[in-house]
Amino acid sequence: MSQGKLLYAQSGGVTAVINTTAAAVITTARAAGVPVYAARNGILGALREDLIDTRKESAAAIAALAYTPGGAFGSCRFKLKSLEADRAHYQRLIEVLRAHDIRRFLYNGGNDSADTANKVSQIAREFDYPLHCIGVPKTVDNDLVVTDCCPGFGSAAKYTAVSLREAAIDVASMAETSTKVFVLEVMGRHAGWLAAAAGLAGHGADEAPHLILFPEVVFDEARFMAAVDATVKRVGYCVVAVSEGVRDGDGKFLADAGRTDAFGHVQLGGAGPEIAARVSAKLGYKTHWAVPDYLQRSARHLASKTDHDHAWAAGEAAVKYALAGQNAVMPVIVRTSDAPYRWKIQSAPLAKIANREKTLPKNYIRKDSYGITDAARRYLEPLIRGESAPPYGKDGLPKYVSLKNAPVARKLAEYRVGK
Amino acid sequence: MSQGKLLYAQSGGVTAVINTTAAAVITTARAAGVPVYAARNGILGALREDLIDTRKESAAAIAALAYTPGGAFGSCRFKLKSLEADRAHYQRLIEVLRAHDIRRFLYNGGNDSADTANKVSQIAREFDYPLHCIGVPKTVDNDLVVTDCCPGFGSAAKYTAVSLREAAIDVASMAETSTKVFVLEVMGRHAGWLAAAAGLAGHGADEAPHLILFPEVVFDEARFMAAVDATVKRVGYCVVAVSEGVRDGDGKFLADAGRTDAFGHVQLGGAGPEIAARVSAKLGYKTHWAVPDYLQRSARHLASKTDHDHAWAAGEAAVKYALAGQNAVMPVIVRTSDAPYRWKIQSAPLAKIANREKTLPKNYIRKDSYGITDAARRYLEPLIRGESAPPYGKDGLPKYVSLKNAPVARKLAEYRVGK
Repeated sequence: MSQGKLLYAQSGGVTAVINTTAAAVITTARAAGVPVYAARNGILGALREDLIDTRKESAAAIAALAYTPGGAFGSCRFKLKSLEADRAHYQRLIEVLRAHDIRRFLYNGGNDSADTANKVSQIAREFDYPLHCIGVPKTVDNDLVVTDCCPGFGSAAKYTAVSLREAAIDVASMAETSTKVFVLEVMGRHAGWLAAAAGLAGHGADEAPHLILFPEVVFDEARFMAAVDATVKRVGYCVVAVSEGVRDGDGKFLADAGRTDAFGHVQLGGAGPEIAARVSAKLGYKTHWAVPDYLQRSARHLASKTDHDHAWAAGEAAVKYALAGQNAVMPVIVRTSDAPYRWKIQSAPLAKIANREKTLPKNYIRKDSYGITDAARRYLEPLIRGESAPPYGKDGLPKYVSLKNAPVARKLAEYRVGK
Repeated sequence: MSQGKLLYAQSGGVTAVINTTAAAVITTARAAGVPVYAARNGILGALREDLIDTRKESAAAIAALAYTPGGAFGSCRFKLKSLEADRAHYQRLIEVLRAHDIRRFLYNGGNDSADTANKVSQIAREFDYPLHCIGVPKTVDNDLVVTDCCPGFGSAAKYTAVSLREAAIDVASMAETSTKVFVLEVMGRHAGWLAAAAGLAGHGADEAPHLILFPEVVFDEARFMAAVDATVKRVGYCVVAVSEGVRDGDGKFLADAGRTDAFGHVQLGGAGPEIAARVSAKLGYKTHWAVPDYLQRSARHLASKTDHDHAWAAGEAAVKYALAGQNAVMPVIVRTSDAPYRWKIQSAPLAKIANREKTLPKNYIRKDSYGITDAARRYLEPLIRGESAPPYGKDGLPKYVSLKNAPVARKLAEYRVGK
């Protein structure tokens, strides 16, 4: 029996190492003699039969892919709803897979994507189409359940901790006559994983970040202002890491843009400037703020080696699971030891992961709410360990690859979706 | 005759490599047997007789200093005015230098600092105090005249170009269903050097940055919106690099637009968020923006090797000039060839550098005003070339050094200044 082909698709927000996973998928499948198609712009490409033949990419290009940020085949924010509501889409997906003899579907994303991959495996069974669906973990938000951590998070965490430390050293140099309070806004709508990672930049009360504002903790302005003021008086300056998702007592985001994305999530941006403006107004200190936004999740130049290794291992295991006949599972990262840090990859059912969200454990947040605990440090620190720098060109820039992304000839009628 | 001691002070905004210069100063002076004092918090420390004895620092600490961002002895924004207006300060400075047998004064800063170093050399002559004053170049703004470039700029430029390329790859991956227009705000209130550096991230009209907004070009909103729209329609997305100093036709900074959010709160400036908000409002595209702020000038982890080498050479030459009896000069970088890139250090009179500002040459800005020319690329590219990564610890963070900064015993009465 033909092994068929393997279809790989990227979903949701991209990371510094999602392409590392893609490179591992292609490399592992090639070694097994299984052709890999990729969906252009994620699930939309699969629905539209807009497929990419990765056999047209050289081995050198795939090797470079492992060190290139972004999503090389395109990703999308497009969520398939229930099997009932979006039945036509699921049916179409099976038609496309069947038309191209695709027997393995690897969907690289977060908890929404785990849900989709799970539903696709159900509909395939219903249509009696022999398909192996594997979810492949990815998200800078680190909010997938079951897995110890998510590929993409470690690199964003490292970027956050390193950037905060560097900026704090800068601020400390100038504090007497310049900025007294510096605010770094970090990603994380609902869970303070990246806010916590900022805490890795320092040790003890006098090292930056002096104050972290977690989305898990209701913002108490009076208490916060007192803490900022006390820090400036004690240390000479104050560095604050604030999650984009921090909320006030009414449950409102401090910087609510009032818009929503395709998943229905509120689109944020601006908790940092908001906090800085309030500090200036209430305390009169000179403030500066930074919002790295996408820089935080695309900084491949500062990727964590641990994260790179996780991302590669997840891609490799996903192919192996698919070829071994597993279905509706995800390769997850299991931590077997904190020190020395040891981990392995294990198979877990998508049904246990889909649509759930892992929040920051309460015991990771210090009692005063403004810092991380030793437990958090034990968990987080191994994830930012090691460097995985890309090769650089003579022009001083990383050598990031642009794939050919050669289209596969269509076999079906046009299907309009997503526009 | 005693060589006396050497006093080194840092001035103004710090950079990723100002400590590289400091390390070169200390290393070179140590090799010559000349003790180095540093002024705590720049010229303020010199006036207050708040001096640091760098002999207390180990060779390992000084070696690590070369890879540590920020200003290790503290810097300040405190400008000495004319000899007449600030005569008491200048006199005090001579008293402090005399009390500690300091015969060489190295002032590491921009054009204001070159002016101060020049004036200190004048007042020393007037008081018949044998002093050699050397200005040492430093500024991410790259706005010093005479020198081909300024230590600190190359690393900020590399950070800007790399970050923009990475974010652009991210945006390209997601453009169909997510952000269509991404805006990166870069430093440079008066001169578009860093805005121009963003241009190194891509080649040709379809590679990011698609549009650069220079402070040298009056912002024409209608023309800009048409260019953004045309880019989105042609490329699928649009990446904009905007200088914090971009102004509208009235000469007002866009950052000072005083926009209010949905709740009527005034949103604090930032040319980046302002441009993004206007694009959303006028064109209806989903936008994201990033403001790296201090991250841009403190990103030692992404320093340029060329910049590191310039910074070291400037510090080394400054000591040599001082010991060779030069006075009121600055070691400047002279470019002798673009390709291959060749440069040397040369002595230039402070009087020619003080208080002047080098703006971006007109022929560095493309005719349509939204990009850089080949001439700009020839100038800029060598400055971001090569990597100079710091060593990393087992914790995944760069090993940045914190000096002891042991105080020198005071010999004079207290002098209050700057508070």
